[in-house]
Amino acid sequence: MAPLKNRRFLLVKRPEGTPSPSDFSLVEQPVPAAPEGGMVVRNHFISLDPAQRGWMDDAPSYMPPITLGDPVRATTVGVVHESRNPDFKAGDWVLGLNAMEDYSIVLPGGFTSAIDVTLVDSPSRYLSAVGAVGLTAYFGLLEVGKPQAGETLLVTGAAGAVGAMVGQIGKIKGARVIGIAGGADKCRRLIEDYGFDFAIDYKGKSEAELSALIAQAAPQGVDIVFENVGGVVMEAVTMNLAQRARVVLCGLISEYNATERVGLRNLWQVIVKQATIHGFLIAGYVDRFAEGGAQVAQWIGSGQLRADEDIQNGLENSYDAFMRLFSGANTGKLVLKIA
Amino acid sequence: MAPLKNRRFLLVKRPEGTPSPSDFSLVEQPVPAAPEGGMVVRNHFISLDPAQRGWMDDAPSYMPPITLGDPVRATTVGVVHESRNPDFKAGDWVLGLNAMEDYSIVLPGGFTSAIDVTLVDSPSRYLSAVGAVGLTAYFGLLEVGKPQAGETLLVTGAAGAVGAMVGQIGKIKGARVIGIAGGADKCRRLIEDYGFDFAIDYKGKSEAELSALIAQAAPQGVDIVFENVGGVVMEAVTMNLAQRARVVLCGLISEYNATERVGLRNLWQVIVKQATIHGFLIAGYVDRFAEGGAQVAQWIGSGQLRADEDIQNGLENSYDAFMRLFSGANTGKLVLKIA
Repeated sequence: MAPLKNRRFLLVKRPEGTPSPSDFSLVEQPVPAAPEGGMVVRNHFISLDPAQRGWMDDAPSYMPPITLGDPVRATTVGVVHESRNPDFKAGDWVLGLNAMEDYSIVLPGGFTSAIDVTLVDSPSRYLSAVGAVGLTAYFGLLEVGKPQAGETLLVTGAAGAVGAMVGQIGKIKGARVIGIAGGADKCRRLIEDYGFDFAIDYKGKSEAELSALIAQAAPQGVDIVFENVGGVVMEAVTMNLAQRARVVLCGLISEYNATERVGLRNLWQVIVKQATIHGFLIAGYVDRFAEGGAQVAQWIGSGQLRADEDIQNGLENSYDAFMRLFSGANTGKLVLKIA
Repeated sequence: MAPLKNRRFLLVKRPEGTPSPSDFSLVEQPVPAAPEGGMVVRNHFISLDPAQRGWMDDAPSYMPPITLGDPVRATTVGVVHESRNPDFKAGDWVLGLNAMEDYSIVLPGGFTSAIDVTLVDSPSRYLSAVGAVGLTAYFGLLEVGKPQAGETLLVTGAAGAVGAMVGQIGKIKGARVIGIAGGADKCRRLIEDYGFDFAIDYKGKSEAELSALIAQAAPQGVDIVFENVGGVVMEAVTMNLAQRARVVLCGLISEYNATERVGLRNLWQVIVKQATIHGFLIAGYVDRFAEGGAQVAQWIGSGQLRADEDIQNGLENSYDAFMRLFSGANTGKLVLKIA
């Protein structure tokens, strides 16, 4: 039997603006051995997330930047290949913060947990609906946004994995839900597939045009914003805040690759509306993941929540798959299946 | 006796960027008569505030824009000249939202309250330390920023009326206090007059240089920001937030006259630091003004709090006096004395 190979998708250069293929290199190395007390995991599914773009920059963040020459850090679901950790044995399914590679070394004390794949239709669900996506939507909307029945919730990046779930949870809680997304097809899906009350297509519109459309959909202003996009879309929303609006700042996908960031030039609206912007990381709710996951799973089981995945295939397609995050091509949680 | 004249400082054109003298017109009109149930107030002191610049724009705010041809709206302290309101009589000292003019009509139900000028060394104090300035510092810092002993507080516009008071209240509460101000003299006053622990001069410095100086003064990051300035100064501060930092967004003086606003281009730092930005208006604390005013007055009386005023003279100097807000010339609360 030929020895197993470990293909690894390395970061070799820090991207300036939009990542280019030459910022990365796919190499083949021997499969590593498990270190004492640790293990080696065969990755099956890799979560592709906007946060990875931030880790590629050499800038202050909640995690150190990815070291040049290392594989791109990623949350993965996989199977224990070799274990010297007494808590895991070969063949166990696990979820952890690993990297875009066939095999990852997990050091003792690394962030890895066992998952029960018999509870879900695909192990990839632990990277989407019952994983970070669902938990981000659940805690971000309910613990930070705190929607009350009858309030108006606006979601940007609404057709994305998190956004679609936020809008649906908003409906479950009795809010009026407006979604902003790019393109007629995504807007149609917001209404037909996810039950949003209003959908606004931002494509080809100036900030003023977008702001006027939001004002039509929310004549009393927007009480809660779940912000995934940033830039001009966020500015248009900010012109329509209701008094004491809560902005859950979850992501800024339009800004991550920008060499000239737009920022938030109408920040003064936050003062005059006595609004609050809350920087949100799911990491702040680790101790409540079980509670959130159970509620999301129950809503999915009862048919109240629809969660789509966009599964791409093959580690050799890492770059093209990752770039779907920024092109607006992906529908549902983006996952790369590599085994 | 010659009939009394009412000089009025009118807004005749909406400023584009920095206000110019031709945006205003000083006219002389007859003193109005009190309307039924209302009164006429002889203004003595006029509060000059950055918020007035916002009211000159035709843009959504917490108050309607100033109508072109009307005098510039302002908080004033004055004496009742003629009263048809049973709650006030001629000669009473009052505080109210009036305008930059010798005599203002106060309609029934207008925002006007009697003040006791025997409690203070000058009636202008009701426009500064025991008025909006002191209350903004008090409620903004204590109710929103919530400083804990040992935390690091950073104040921008620190030598301004609000900023100097925020820093001093921060010290009373046991915080380490860093002030950012423009020029060596203001920085010297922060340390010597107001007891700040660190003073940083932003003048002539790039965002990166400013950010490095803040990092030196706050190696563990800034826990509370009291933001009066915005723009590049705010961006430099934002690069130095501690985890779960609270930003009290009180003013954006650097942005009000800008035709190209800087905004906050590193908003993603708010996410990775799980920080919160709170748009703050003193109007949200009206029902607690008495409590706040009493505490501030007590601190001033006991010598724990120093509150400076920058008194300019003469309604004919309205434009030049107002512009001191933006030139960085004023030291202490800016007030125009017109009688």
